[in-house]
Amino acid sequence: MAEKISVAGAGLVGSLLAIYLRKRGYDVDVFESRTDMRRDTISAGRSINLALSDRGIKALEEVGIMNDIREIAIPMHGRYLHNADGSNAFQPYGQKGQFINSVSRGELNKKLMSLAESAGAKIHFNKKIESINWKTNEMIFSDNTSHSCDVIFGADGAYSATRLQHMLHHNKFQYNQYYIDYGYKELSIPAGPGNSFLIEKNALHIWPRGNYMMIALPNIDGSFTCTLFFPFEGNPSFDSLNTNESVIAFFKEHFSDAFELMPTLTEDFNTNPISSLVTVKCYPWIRENKFALIGDAAHAMVPFFGQGMNCGFEDCSVLNELIETFNGDWKEILPAYQHLRKPDGDAICDMALTNFIEMRDRVADPKFLLQKKIEAEFTKRHPDKWRPAYSLVTFSPEVRYSDALKQGTHQEEIMKKIMSVENIEDIWDSHEVENKILQNLVS
Amino acid sequence: MAEKISVAGAGLVGSLLAIYLRKRGYDVDVFESRTDMRRDTISAGRSINLALSDRGIKALEEVGIMNDIREIAIPMHGRYLHNADGSNAFQPYGQKGQFINSVSRGELNKKLMSLAESAGAKIHFNKKIESINWKTNEMIFSDNTSHSCDVIFGADGAYSATRLQHMLHHNKFQYNQYYIDYGYKELSIPAGPGNSFLIEKNALHIWPRGNYMMIALPNIDGSFTCTLFFPFEGNPSFDSLNTNESVIAFFKEHFSDAFELMPTLTEDFNTNPISSLVTVKCYPWIRENKFALIGDAAHAMVPFFGQGMNCGFEDCSVLNELIETFNGDWKEILPAYQHLRKPDGDAICDMALTNFIEMRDRVADPKFLLQKKIEAEFTKRHPDKWRPAYSLVTFSPEVRYSDALKQGTHQEEIMKKIMSVENIEDIWDSHEVENKILQNLVS
Repeated sequence: MAEKISVAGAGLVGSLLAIYLRKRGYDVDVFESRTDMRRDTISAGRSINLALSDRGIKALEEVGIMNDIREIAIPMHGRYLHNADGSNAFQPYGQKGQFINSVSRGELNKKLMSLAESAGAKIHFNKKIESINWKTNEMIFSDNTSHSCDVIFGADGAYSATRLQHMLHHNKFQYNQYYIDYGYKELSIPAGPGNSFLIEKNALHIWPRGNYMMIALPNIDGSFTCTLFFPFEGNPSFDSLNTNESVIAFFKEHFSDAFELMPTLTEDFNTNPISSLVTVKCYPWIRENKFALIGDAAHAMVPFFGQGMNCGFEDCSVLNELIETFNGDWKEILPAYQHLRKPDGDAICDMALTNFIEMRDRVADPKFLLQKKIEAEFTKRHPDKWRPAYSLVTFSPEVRYSDALKQGTHQEEIMKKIMSVENIEDIWDSHEVENKILQNLVS
Repeated sequence: MAEKISVAGAGLVGSLLAIYLRKRGYDVDVFESRTDMRRDTISAGRSINLALSDRGIKALEEVGIMNDIREIAIPMHGRYLHNADGSNAFQPYGQKGQFINSVSRGELNKKLMSLAESAGAKIHFNKKIESINWKTNEMIFSDNTSHSCDVIFGADGAYSATRLQHMLHHNKFQYNQYYIDYGYKELSIPAGPGNSFLIEKNALHIWPRGNYMMIALPNIDGSFTCTLFFPFEGNPSFDSLNTNESVIAFFKEHFSDAFELMPTLTEDFNTNPISSLVTVKCYPWIRENKFALIGDAAHAMVPFFGQGMNCGFEDCSVLNELIETFNGDWKEILPAYQHLRKPDGDAICDMALTNFIEMRDRVADPKFLLQKKIEAEFTKRHPDKWRPAYSLVTFSPEVRYSDALKQGTHQEEIMKKIMSVENIEDIWDSHEVENKILQNLVS
């Protein structure tokens, strides 16, 4: 008889995991606390559009559904910067042909759910977990029903109910949740006539403004989903923009080109919630051969590296390989999964937070911009010797997050030395500097 | 009408807080999840004897009960080291007349409860908090009773139920719980004939053994409560000492002098639980003018600085002063309390963890021992210029924990420079080194 596996959460990772597990022949039940978003309207407005990149794509290809997903994805070949002075700039993400993909969280989630059901998984909606009996591996729901099984996967997101139960019944659970002092709010740029795109379609738009920023990602209907990342307190902040007039004045002044394209700005601003941004690290992720956390439930991260979903999908891919390697023996699979993925989850959580801090504190620093220029120049001359962490994380699924972080840290150390060279401003593109980097790379 | 205040937890801090609040005329109800330890036997065996020092004493004096407590306290004038080679050494804690006090957690707690009741507080036992309604400031207990009040204090310890409710209903709660990979077990050395002390009475005994250690603190009945701090896993560890024979062999070899005095060793070892050691940091500690965490519930720490209780008592003392300053206006008191105490709680949590790491990793390092020797020599020559962090924390309640940490960090930076001096091993007590420290202190 096939083993019974339960997945808590029919989000992106839970649904994909269900597909993987069904392909291996397990009995799969998925329990989702919310209603079926394919039938009912779900409160939107907290959906940062997603950037699907190579790690996520690899997983979707493994289960044979990438072609389905491609239909709802829009390639983004680089960042399109909308500067404060009104100028624009396009920065390609990588080599030619390398791009990331804008996908709507809602559309992707619906598609994954339906594919999971086609693969034979049962999804049970409106099943809110109240508690878990770890002795019987039984989930008890708020409607007083319950379900027991051989293995439970907690794929229930950053505010995971399974993780809370795990934590409450564990006597040495390492746990850290850390909120940054920024929140985000979803806004929108509607499509133009005939579903046309009113700004460049194939790009991730950024309005960087020092200590805050807005981004916009394209949707297949011609609209853009905008996300404003903004301090909770201070000036300006969500706190200080507390009237329609102040919102309009602020956007007119600081996002003038976007403002012209946002007819529903004040309505969106008043209706959509301010969401928080949290990093969660915890350990252990597993209980013997009975339970494992996966995706955001194991490692929630801030969205500034565009890797939350991709990392969760990669978790599924790694787990799938380990099921193969250990021939379905969960006593071996789960510890190996934790051993492999915990350092990678930590690494991408840290890199995402570092990106936030860089964005906030360093992006206006001329020294930092010079450093980035030197790195870019060196990469151009020696593409084999210096691959930026961003490129490794986004386009090289064969490199582990933890190794990308190590390389990034090593590069940062080298650049510290380079930036302390006298007159670096004048000789930044000289052979002297190039050779110094080469020497440091070898040593 | 007097404001109604509820205190969750009738432990050391909860009981002391109740006394302070009664002295200010508030209506005070204390809710304790356990049974009344003065009437029923409570499972012992997880009680690290406490080291009451100046910060705690200051608070007990403020409420006029230090004389009561002194009856159950035994002065400890220094560390009595039992070395692995069989040698002994006595290290005074401070100047002449400076000492800390061994008190039994159970006896102290019973005394504080009775004093709280005499002061007019009502203690309700067997009241386990199930949830808190933050709108009505109402605690709901597992026996389906409830209690609402103006202000709730969460004094319910490292595994605080009020903190959990606070966390679950907060949308940006910073939270970190961190377990070290060591646990502890209580053991004992009974009294000799006629309640005599079989080892030096007025000392804190330590058997340091590199990556593990045992300590013993005197009780008024002539016995000593021993605590073994030991790794959970590895060799040796709680994991590896899994038979009576292995326990006996291990103690015979590594704690031979103590072993002779521990007739109930294997019984204690088998009966007493292995307890974990956790650091908890969180923020915010308060909810408007309605709720505040205090003591371990706000800042649990590992016991290696002997400050857990002292810090909690100091919390009460600071809070009491603020009630005076702000004339009972909780809207002012609670934010000021958090603002003052959060950095101090963080500081002592960090210092306690650092002490653990030093104990584990550096205590056998000759360089570290030399550094401590140089510091001690300098303190002797310039007692006004170099007060070790240990002394500030333990004997100087007028210096905030956060300032003690700052001074300690500054001293550590200076000593890093000193230790890199050439031939420091040969010239450690020279005027040259002394002057170098003096120069660094000024700059």
